[in-house]
Amino acid sequence: MYRTHNCGELRLNDLNQDVTLSGWVQKSRNKGFLLWIDLRDRYGVSQLIFDEKRSSKELFEKAKKLGREFVIQVEGKIIERSSKNPNIPTGDIEILVSNLKILNSSKTPPFTIENNTDGGEELRMKYRYLDIRRDTIKKKLLFRHKVNSEIRNYLSKLDFVDVETPYLIKSTPEGARDFVVPSRMNPGEFYALPQSPQTFKQLLMVGGLDKYFQIVKCFRDEDLRSDRQPEFTQIDCEMSFVTQEDVLNTFEGLTKHLLKSIKNIEVDKFPRITYDDAISKYGSDKPDIRFGMEFGELNKVTQHKEFSVFNSAELVVGISVPNGNDFTRKEIDKYVDWVKRPQIGASGMIYVRCNQDGTFKSSVDKFYDQKDLSDWADLVKANKGDIIFILSGNTNVVRSQLSALRLEIAENLNLRNSEEFAPLWVTDFPLLEWDEESQKYHAMHHPFTSPKNEDIDMLETNPGRVRANAYDLVLNGNEIGGGSIRIHDKNIQSLMFKYLGFSNEEAKEQFGFLMDAFEYGAPPHGGIALGLDRLVAILDGNESIKDYIAFPKNNSGKDVMIDAPSFLSKEQLKELSLSLKK
Amino acid sequence: MYRTHNCGELRLNDLNQDVTLSGWVQKSRNKGFLLWIDLRDRYGVSQLIFDEKRSSKELFEKAKKLGREFVIQVEGKIIERSSKNPNIPTGDIEILVSNLKILNSSKTPPFTIENNTDGGEELRMKYRYLDIRRDTIKKKLLFRHKVNSEIRNYLSKLDFVDVETPYLIKSTPEGARDFVVPSRMNPGEFYALPQSPQTFKQLLMVGGLDKYFQIVKCFRDEDLRSDRQPEFTQIDCEMSFVTQEDVLNTFEGLTKHLLKSIKNIEVDKFPRITYDDAISKYGSDKPDIRFGMEFGELNKVTQHKEFSVFNSAELVVGISVPNGNDFTRKEIDKYVDWVKRPQIGASGMIYVRCNQDGTFKSSVDKFYDQKDLSDWADLVKANKGDIIFILSGNTNVVRSQLSALRLEIAENLNLRNSEEFAPLWVTDFPLLEWDEESQKYHAMHHPFTSPKNEDIDMLETNPGRVRANAYDLVLNGNEIGGGSIRIHDKNIQSLMFKYLGFSNEEAKEQFGFLMDAFEYGAPPHGGIALGLDRLVAILDGNESIKDYIAFPKNNSGKDVMIDAPSFLSKEQLKELSLSLKK
Repeated sequence: MYRTHNCGELRLNDLNQDVTLSGWVQKSRNKGFLLWIDLRDRYGVSQLIFDEKRSSKELFEKAKKLGREFVIQVEGKIIERSSKNPNIPTGDIEILVSNLKILNSSKTPPFTIENNTDGGEELRMKYRYLDIRRDTIKKKLLFRHKVNSEIRNYLSKLDFVDVETPYLIKSTPEGARDFVVPSRMNPGEFYALPQSPQTFKQLLMVGGLDKYFQIVKCFRDEDLRSDRQPEFTQIDCEMSFVTQEDVLNTFEGLTKHLLKSIKNIEVDKFPRITYDDAISKYGSDKPDIRFGMEFGELNKVTQHKEFSVFNSAELVVGISVPNGNDFTRKEIDKYVDWVKRPQIGASGMIYVRCNQDGTFKSSVDKFYDQKDLSDWADLVKANKGDIIFILSGNTNVVRSQLSALRLEIAENLNLRNSEEFAPLWVTDFPLLEWDEESQKYHAMHHPFTSPKNEDIDMLETNPGRVRANAYDLVLNGNEIGGGSIRIHDKNIQSLMFKYLGFSNEEAKEQFGFLMDAFEYGAPPHGGIALGLDRLVAILDGNESIKDYIAFPKNNSGKDVMIDAPSFLSKEQLKELSLSLKK
Repeated sequence: MYRTHNCGELRLNDLNQDVTLSGWVQKSRNKGFLLWIDLRDRYGVSQLIFDEKRSSKELFEKAKKLGREFVIQVEGKIIERSSKNPNIPTGDIEILVSNLKILNSSKTPPFTIENNTDGGEELRMKYRYLDIRRDTIKKKLLFRHKVNSEIRNYLSKLDFVDVETPYLIKSTPEGARDFVVPSRMNPGEFYALPQSPQTFKQLLMVGGLDKYFQIVKCFRDEDLRSDRQPEFTQIDCEMSFVTQEDVLNTFEGLTKHLLKSIKNIEVDKFPRITYDDAISKYGSDKPDIRFGMEFGELNKVTQHKEFSVFNSAELVVGISVPNGNDFTRKEIDKYVDWVKRPQIGASGMIYVRCNQDGTFKSSVDKFYDQKDLSDWADLVKANKGDIIFILSGNTNVVRSQLSALRLEIAENLNLRNSEEFAPLWVTDFPLLEWDEESQKYHAMHHPFTSPKNEDIDMLETNPGRVRANAYDLVLNGNEIGGGSIRIHDKNIQSLMFKYLGFSNEEAKEQFGFLMDAFEYGAPPHGGIALGLDRLVAILDGNESIKDYIAFPKNNSGKDVMIDAPSFLSKEQLKELSLSLKK
């Protein structure tokens, strides 16, 4: 037996007990005649004391030689500390050690195992097993487990059944690139790793399982952006005999349960906004609504004067920054420069100061009078003491520029409080989106998403305006989930494939099994998939997902710790009937 | 809203309620003036009634046209059945339908959606989504979910933390073949899919997570035997600061909890047997101990006479079949023929009838007297009325032949009761096993398994006799799990690699990151992995795993429903820098 207790559980009322502890040497303090060691394990830190008087000489000498991260086992008696540490739960006691066994030695770690480490990201990733010893990373992994458990138990209680769908499936050219897996037993053929279990969960509904969930790894061979992973985890759900309302209520319930059980936060009914409104009010389909600064469209009240910048613009749109009139000229210029950076790409920005006396001072006073500026202030809901920022240009471009500015300002003004949670449903997404490259419409969500009944006729006449029964769950400006009511009618499904530019043969080749399934009594069904990595990070008050993944990959898709991917042996390639192209 | 209730919950005390139900038409019975329809969903079956008098003509005609597996929604009132069905929970009531909506039609299914279907395995697999509608398959998937939930909650309560390890890892030539995944971003390089998260769980222990579990898919590119799958699910666990005793007790606790919570069966402390004893008593390292028939070794009492078959044998070994003296001559001959089949390969079998009067009658009476036969009977623990079967030959061969015969007889005599559960720990497995093909020793469990301290010296002198701190959990003759205490000392690990024939470079190339990790204070640790697919099947009284997997692959590793694996497009291959060899 290696221990009677862990390093986090001993208290004053355990005094005088004989205990055995095991753990890592966090640090030691040597006072010459006294030696303290902080012994660490997953559960906490306990202080060990060695004493020239009370410890044997041999034991004292052995203890002096312990290095950081040595693994040791000690026997001793719990005594009261003379100088208590109120910052840790075990801070009232220490263990007077009578026996010490070194279970394993350690080289000096390449970075300090402390919350604020001196290790850079690359070093931390190479020695991820040491990084995980740090309290800050360890807690994030434990937090993820807690969220995971709460989700499973909540959904299980609602009769959702956890079904494992296959990982070795069929490659489909739709959407992002698949990772593929050569089949040795079927030379020349490949499996694909799932981008999501989409078709399988629909087949489970056809199979009558009624409510399905799975917390499942998914794979996308995409060029990686900074916070994307080639493998990621999805909370994948599907329900039969449901309307959009049923799905939204169910997963609003789940999200509320998580906020309550994990963060002890009660949230009212989630607001809902249509995609069109989100775009015009926030310039984004995943608006952060922890703060205001809604867009005000100003075409009507700006295009009647001689200011050609506005007059030639498709859209003139502004936001009001609370108390922004406090900005110095230098601060304003900084924001003007910020929107003119190539990443944002605005050609300039107009501002209007809203003075406390009700007057306005703008950078376009030459063109507009106080009445004009007052109209603008009304439309962007500016108060005295605010500042109004106005951009103009092509509608889509200018909305996304102003959306970026809105978030930047909120960040700077500390309006994005990570312990505040503002969930939001965005509904009525467009069914299709135009792809410039292929010059055709693509499914915005996926090809199984149902169009709104009242819009079906527009598929012929105005496909870009057809709305879908599709919805996203947005939390603090992040899309944490999305779903839809699916098509269960094979005729509508065929129509969809037609409008997506699939020939009958292509549709049959790629989705034949699903279309077949729809011939045998598919029930109405719909669902949602939530990104677990991001959900966990946001619930824990962070936006970066990497530290919530035990062994993440870097931006080149590499695991630098195990050195993967790597080259295969010639024999392996031969067995797979493959050769490499230069 | 598609339904107010499901099809399994309505009872007599819901009488006169107006309800809405949705589901599938299981079958209809048309009496001309009365029409009953069994409406099915995941939760049960409710009877609908349409009536020439009480239903509108239009409704009645519409109902008559409904085919099997049509998806419908009905509104109606709950009434009491005149002829009740005590076999189903909803059997006291029926729904007098006032409104009927066809949600989807259905072609005639290729096989009947009944517990006893007329569909063969291949057809069922091709239309797995229809197969899942059958109660028998659906219940198996729900059962799996229940086992899964119980495991997670039990381990979570014990502070095990669920950590997701990566699926895209590094290929290692050790053990079975890896499935590999070409990396597009790193041309010519490949990931591998994990055969198990073995190294990652050990790194999590080095990382201080203390107790880890994961229910995780694993992959092996093996030639498939009848009941193996290329992807399978493992309950993967690891603990730090533990001895073998700690691990066995923890997972004995889990298994007991499952038997209690799922089957309501209490099991005493699990018996333990060493590998050597299991082999000599049962000829198997996964003995089924629901019944006796232990081996009796007979060399001493058989090799003193003129019977050259026994005299020339390395091992003479027998079992006593309870009440086997009732076997007819024909039945005995059938068993003699059975062991002589090429799959078993015995050259013959000796039997001894144990008569009720205490005398013996054997097939070798020419060579042995009653005293000899009585000695044999003692050694195989035969009672009056039993029959003794004896095989002889090479020790390993004859043990495995007799083991097969023992199971065959038990099967025929119904001694393998699938509702009886006899768990067993097999301990002290050999560390190494000799591989004829490569003419070297292989790790029996894996190269991280620790040798028993007292046997380490034999690594030089008698490696085949070195025992490991390795154990298997056996349930009803099936290995459902195996594990070991790992090596945490880098010197012993290096020694192991040396005896396994790895050069320093090979070891570093393949396991360098793990050996590095062991330099930084690896704690003593050990663990176990249980096969979820098989565990679930056995708990449910079955031995075949296929129907406990929603979408299994066939024996060629193919998913015949989605038609995977399949060929890639030229563009896909090109992007992956691959070409196919003929």
